[in-house]
Amino acid sequence: MTTLLDTLRTIVGPAHVLHEGDLTAWEQDWRRRVRGKALAVVRPANTQEVAAVVKACAAAGTAIVPQGGNTGLAVGSTPDDSGTQIVLSLTRMNAVRSVDTDNLTMTVEAGCILQNLQDEAEKAGVLFPLSLAAEGSCTIGGNLGTNAGGTQVVRYGNARDLCLGLEVVTPQGEVWDGLKGLRKDNTGYDLRDLFIGSEGTLGIITAATMKLYPQPAANLTAWAAVPSMEHAVALLGLAHKQLGAGLTGFEVMGQFALSLVGKHMPQLRVPFLGDENAPWCVLLENSDSESEEHARARFESLLETAFEMGCVTDAVVAENLTQAHQLWHIRESIPLAQAEEGLNIKHDISVQISRIPAFVAHTDAVLQREIPGVRLVNFGHLGDGNLHYNVQAPAEGDPKAFLREYEAHVNHLVYEAVAQFGGSFSAEHGIGELKADKLAKYQSPVALSMMRAIKQALDPQGIMNPKRVLQ
Amino acid sequence: MTTLLDTLRTIVGPAHVLHEGDLTAWEQDWRRRVRGKALAVVRPANTQEVAAVVKACAAAGTAIVPQGGNTGLAVGSTPDDSGTQIVLSLTRMNAVRSVDTDNLTMTVEAGCILQNLQDEAEKAGVLFPLSLAAEGSCTIGGNLGTNAGGTQVVRYGNARDLCLGLEVVTPQGEVWDGLKGLRKDNTGYDLRDLFIGSEGTLGIITAATMKLYPQPAANLTAWAAVPSMEHAVALLGLAHKQLGAGLTGFEVMGQFALSLVGKHMPQLRVPFLGDENAPWCVLLENSDSESEEHARARFESLLETAFEMGCVTDAVVAENLTQAHQLWHIRESIPLAQAEEGLNIKHDISVQISRIPAFVAHTDAVLQREIPGVRLVNFGHLGDGNLHYNVQAPAEGDPKAFLREYEAHVNHLVYEAVAQFGGSFSAEHGIGELKADKLAKYQSPVALSMMRAIKQALDPQGIMNPKRVLQ
Repeated sequence: MTTLLDTLRTIVGPAHVLHEGDLTAWEQDWRRRVRGKALAVVRPANTQEVAAVVKACAAAGTAIVPQGGNTGLAVGSTPDDSGTQIVLSLTRMNAVRSVDTDNLTMTVEAGCILQNLQDEAEKAGVLFPLSLAAEGSCTIGGNLGTNAGGTQVVRYGNARDLCLGLEVVTPQGEVWDGLKGLRKDNTGYDLRDLFIGSEGTLGIITAATMKLYPQPAANLTAWAAVPSMEHAVALLGLAHKQLGAGLTGFEVMGQFALSLVGKHMPQLRVPFLGDENAPWCVLLENSDSESEEHARARFESLLETAFEMGCVTDAVVAENLTQAHQLWHIRESIPLAQAEEGLNIKHDISVQISRIPAFVAHTDAVLQREIPGVRLVNFGHLGDGNLHYNVQAPAEGDPKAFLREYEAHVNHLVYEAVAQFGGSFSAEHGIGELKADKLAKYQSPVALSMMRAIKQALDPQGIMNPKRVLQ
Repeated sequence: MTTLLDTLRTIVGPAHVLHEGDLTAWEQDWRRRVRGKALAVVRPANTQEVAAVVKACAAAGTAIVPQGGNTGLAVGSTPDDSGTQIVLSLTRMNAVRSVDTDNLTMTVEAGCILQNLQDEAEKAGVLFPLSLAAEGSCTIGGNLGTNAGGTQVVRYGNARDLCLGLEVVTPQGEVWDGLKGLRKDNTGYDLRDLFIGSEGTLGIITAATMKLYPQPAANLTAWAAVPSMEHAVALLGLAHKQLGAGLTGFEVMGQFALSLVGKHMPQLRVPFLGDENAPWCVLLENSDSESEEHARARFESLLETAFEMGCVTDAVVAENLTQAHQLWHIRESIPLAQAEEGLNIKHDISVQISRIPAFVAHTDAVLQREIPGVRLVNFGHLGDGNLHYNVQAPAEGDPKAFLREYEAHVNHLVYEAVAQFGGSFSAEHGIGELKADKLAKYQSPVALSMMRAIKQALDPQGIMNPKRVLQ
């Protein structure tokens, strides 16, 4: 393989073909579940170099694993352990090519870190609303490759909904410039959305034109205690009705999830912690185009109606931005608190919002019946019907043994319940390698057959991120 | 072909296989540009019948032209004149399968008329925002097949953005049930968006799950005189900033377009007609989740700022719903006024909003230089960067002769200008047969090659709506 490495060195420069030393950052996945071995890590500086790298790999029949921030949760951006795959890292391609506030778009390279894009937008006086836990290190290319979700989806949609155009290097090393930045454009099949969410298996996203929004005049956050999941759903309906598009966040958290935050981060003051009238808490965000005063009046009116309807038993509205950040910080600390508590089994499921209460009641009961000592860490983006319905190893006993014995069974029970309720076993984290077997099992055979035909049509050599998404 | 017709009669019943008598309604396109001849018009009652019809046609190697309300503007839903193609009309499949106000979705069959869906949503106390001129007769299947746009796109997006899932019959007669109604679902490639906008060339949409929204508390409409297209764009930015998601409509109309309404519909009172300080007028809609009073206050504040900035020279705000409808009616009457004035050449183009003023100045100048007596009827959805940049035959002389002589040249000049400004020659009307040659010319060769590979992969027999979209 010396020839290929030499060619790659010529294309990107010797300093950007890494194949010795510690490559852990590129070879190991974020959750440290899998450690692969790359032939080399190649770090092109621009789209032309990406195209040339792909052409060289295609000629050599060498597989390519595109990688952004390598923060994915489904093992989609690390090489297998064969030592034959190239990791193509996009992180050097981090230019903001343009910001157009009249068109409300920005065109950015795939390796831009999400938080930097939020900051660039803010500097230009506009909002780039995609927001998720890994925003400090994930890249927009990865966000698009996995169609990332996050906390603002209830108002602004997933990464897919925020994208107006892509630049892609095809598996043949051709460059498709689809960066038009138009809000209406019906000129043939929707290739953009085909690449979004395809996790690098159909080509490499090298740049994107993303939507921007006007900055709200005020963001206000509230934390409400709700007596049941049914009431949480009713509160969501009420919030949609009264706040309209002002509703930009609607998160639900179960008391056990919050108790882990209370236990492991005692410095965080969790409202209504342990309150038996608050089996669930809801975090609401209201983004107002008028003023903070107006936002507060709308929130008060909403919460008043919700009290009267019995949807909410108690609530606090953040007095200022610091308090708002503290409330969001509690929500965002749940995964870390879970990790502090010990081993656990994570899910990323979605169900129609109207069916969430029945789904949770049913699945809780099944797990409690079948899995001794199970502890359910249930929280998520209720506004999108997306729950991180996680399972913590029992308080007593060896958590490693628990996972060994029960992980597959827990997954089976949860995914069967999701299928029974017409939901999705993969809402916002993607398929990667981790869930490729689940895709084969739960996706419709007709859909799978079309997906395989498309993969074969666009990547007949099968060199793009093999065995991810489709096995 | 008796055998195929007999098979089809067995599937859908003899009354629903039409092949004698006057089939104009199915064989002629909406704008009466093309008249085809079908082997038969087949009208299945449900998805299983659609699947069986497709299987029978696939076995016979017979081409299928799917058809909804047959209101398309790009000749995409009528048969060719060979007498060998089946028109598969979806209009009997017009059931609303379910409305779920908690999930804010409705699942509907492809043959549902758009206006009926708006009405069904309203009855359930929610909003289905897709709205366009043909809504009284077009079907949701056709809206999705062509990714229709319309007047509410600035807030709610195109048909694509309003769809959460599809049921599709593939070219092999298999049924794909993708009607999950989830707001987050990353389980493989995005087949939904591939079918949306593919104009029946990859399969037949038989049902869809569409997003619903809370009904606004009030809709308010204003009509503003603006001194230039630059000022119209500045007003748009201001409206985004001040109204946020309240901005649900932003239409621009040139004085010549309005003068045709004034001339042919004298009963309509067009504000600022002939006013030299108003070369352009803008129609704005503000949908408020609070109250009419609040909507009015927000509008007043916006218009006040706009006056101060010089974006607006005069404005009227509708006092009530009747006045609002009258203002919208003026905007919607432009195409009819154009038809009354005589023959014309229509375009459906989009350009980045920030480049619209320069595009219009450039293209106006080119046409005025190259086409003697040209009259520009320019209006459209400025909020989406989408103009119906139409050309009326000169006032003097024979309009038929003008079209014969100049239509191709006018199209050439407009589309070249669009390409030069990085825009799209087809924003919301689709490609059909009418613009398939333009797609081949203006779409990138890399994109075309991927599109052809996808068509070949999913419809290797080439029986689905042949020669539409891809030649």
